[in-house]
Amino acid sequence: MPVITLTTDFGIKDGFTGVLKGVIWGICPDAQIADITHTVSPQNIFEGAMALYRAVPFFPAGTVHIAVVDPGVGTKRRPMAARLGEQFFVGPDNGLFTPEIEDAEQKHLPAEFVHLDNPDYWLPAISHTFHGRDIFAPVAAHLARGIDLTSLGTSFSDPVRITLPKPERTPEGWNAHVTIIDIYGNITTDLLADQLEGRSDISFHIRGQIINGIVESYGWRSPGDLVALKDSEGYIEIAEVNGSAGKTLGALPGDIIQVILHE
Amino acid sequence: MPVITLTTDFGIKDGFTGVLKGVIWGICPDAQIADITHTVSPQNIFEGAMALYRAVPFFPAGTVHIAVVDPGVGTKRRPMAARLGEQFFVGPDNGLFTPEIEDAEQKHLPAEFVHLDNPDYWLPAISHTFHGRDIFAPVAAHLARGIDLTSLGTSFSDPVRITLPKPERTPEGWNAHVTIIDIYGNITTDLLADQLEGRSDISFHIRGQIINGIVESYGWRSPGDLVALKDSEGYIEIAEVNGSAGKTLGALPGDIIQVILHE
Amino acid sequence: MPVITLTTDFGIKDGFTGVLKGVIWGICPDAQIADITHTVSPQNIFEGAMALYRAVPFFPAGTVHIAVVDPGVGTKRRPMAARLGEQFFVGPDNGLFTPEIEDAEQKHLPAEFVHLDNPDYWLPAISHTFHGRDIFAPVAAHLARGIDLTSLGTSFSDPVRITLPKPERTPEGWNAHVTIIDIYGNITTDLLADQLEGRSDISFHIRGQIINGIVESYGWRSPGDLVALKDSEGYIEIAEVNGSAGKTLGALPGDIIQVILHE
Repeated sequence: MPVITLTTDFGIKDGFTGVLKGVIWGICPDAQIADITHTVSPQNIFEGAMALYRAVPFFPAGTVHIAVVDPGVGTKRRPMAARLGEQFFVGPDNGLFTPEIEDAEQKHLPAEFVHLDNPDYWLPAISHTFHGRDIFAPVAAHLARGIDLTSLGTSFSDPVRITLPKPERTPEGWNAHVTIIDIYGNITTDLLADQLEGRSDISFHIRGQIINGIVESYGWRSPGDLVALKDSEGYIEIAEVNGSAGKTLGALPGDIIQVILHE
Repeated sequence: MPVITLTTDFGIKDGFTGVLKGVIWGICPDAQIADITHTVSPQNIFEGAMALYRAVPFFPAGTVHIAVVDPGVGTKRRPMAARLGEQFFVGPDNGLFTPEIEDAEQKHLPAEFVHLDNPDYWLPAISHTFHGRDIFAPVAAHLARGIDLTSLGTSFSDPVRITLPKPERTPEGWNAHVTIIDIYGNITTDLLADQLEGRSDISFHIRGQIINGIVESYGWRSPGDLVALKDSEGYIEIAEVNGSAGKTLGALPGDIIQVILHE
Repeated sequence: MPVITLTTDFGIKDGFTGVLKGVIWGICPDAQIADITHTVSPQNIFEGAMALYRAVPFFPAGTVHIAVVDPGVGTKRRPMAARLGEQFFVGPDNGLFTPEIEDAEQKHLPAEFVHLDNPDYWLPAISHTFHGRDIFAPVAAHLARGIDLTSLGTSFSDPVRITLPKPERTPEGWNAHVTIIDIYGNITTDLLADQLEGRSDISFHIRGQIINGIVESYGWRSPGDLVALKDSEGYIEIAEVNGSAGKTLGALPGDIIQVILHE
């Protein structure tokens, strides 16, 4: 059965996400639909991109990912679909898919982009404010049914990208950045644990606090301790055992974490 | 595959919505189930009716819509099911389905109502406080499997209705009303854009603010501007570009919006 | 179609729950997946156990229930799967399934426990912080496809249990305990209505308030009245008509409710 995912800033109160499912099942009745998240901060493209990026690798080949964080709806920003490796992406051309595009480039995976300008695959009546319902959901449902990507519109090669934070080398080690602070207050960074090359004599400096060394998991230290560890996607994470590192540190996405590699 | 939707005030914390799915899949194992919303303000029938009403037109023929906002559970209010046009509705007879009933009347669509008084299609044990689980979910699952509506109970013709706001003509134009304020703070009204007959020299007066003209979408004005536009269901909407008109204006459902058509 | 449920403290913002569905559908493409709740208070095992316990009886035989409230992830706590009666349970061995285990014992239902130590049924790469994704979701998907429980690891017989509150007999009647306070502010207790043996001359003493007698449902008293009734699972519940008894009384899980049976 085909799989479709939804990542939006629609919230869960107004019924907008249910409507997408009605449209999809009207076209592709056996689609399995997974909500990734609908509580991206309104119009925060970076946050939406990160939420989707963490989920994509765990979905089967052929999955169609709809993402709608769309401050430019109804203006000239292109509606787009893409094939990147073995998965499909549908949404506004505003940078939401930047991490997957960069991944595909680094791994030399197939990458195709289509401007959704063929109304044959849209709902019959198109609003100016809800392309998620009128364009993205029906297009994704047609893709899930097996319609060829190129039927959906005109190919293009210059998708809009957002600037993703990258850790920078410093004389002492790295300057990493906070990317996501999750519901537990765990702070994810842009530094892969592999980039530390097995070094263990490390300290992490964030918001005036110093955390020494890396632990395997939360349970290895005492409640209230701040720890650094490798998160479930391979990135360095700062956490508080049984607490919220995000709140304790007052950390925000974009904050710099100085990573010192000792002699 | 049959489609069932859920619109409730159950919230998402207590597991009540998951229970409905267990009951449904026990009877109709291949049902696709869409959550419309579970965060209707507790016991607010009008808000539940509006959320459902916006979603219904986008679901395929044969969909069974369960709605449970049910302050009268366990009293003499009737449990009901209805066929309105090509869709089915199941819930308490307290006005939740008023918009679809009025729509069916205006469009002369088939409309049948049944008092759910045949316990053959309920769970074996019935509580006094959770008819969503014990009556509405199993009845909807049987409908989705193809059981005839009339098997479910006794026909009736006088469903309870709530009063829905309607815009009123004035010497200068219209008095419209705020119906929904969504998560973005966008303010939906009861005035269809078509009722303005293409007039563009219009102003909207709400909570001491004046908004002139109609724009196509949010992106056509600057952040912070208040704008009027046609929303994705065809109604006049008041929005703030990249902001929350609801918060900025302090608007509430029921507020009057004076619509002035200039010479 | 096989049914899987999810009960977690993952929240709904970060996409963790969507990831579980991707993993499941990669292994068992036709699984129906019901979210019970994802907003268990972080690391509150008792609350997670209660939410799951209320939902389980309404799912069909063969359902696989995943529960992840897992403060000990990455330490020596066992990952486990169980068959209890006709349903399956997958999660950390930390007491989450205590109510179902006690139920199975009381009803002399089959009960089997397996330590998930066979990596053949896990994702290929295992993190130290997200066993929900890497172990529990794939194991549940294999169970849903029909893999035998005993293939998943080594049998054991001493699952970790938490202490569940039980009502105590007193000279005047019972001391019951608050177990759950739901979104409506309804207060569920650990006292089964059947334990009152049809007595109606009863009073309930909680936080300095006295509630006399038992009503059938909320609608039988006036808004603002505190009432006692039999809840939809058969337990005594304290509620406020059209209000929140939890807020009005300032009640908390664990509070004692004195139940006085009068002459």
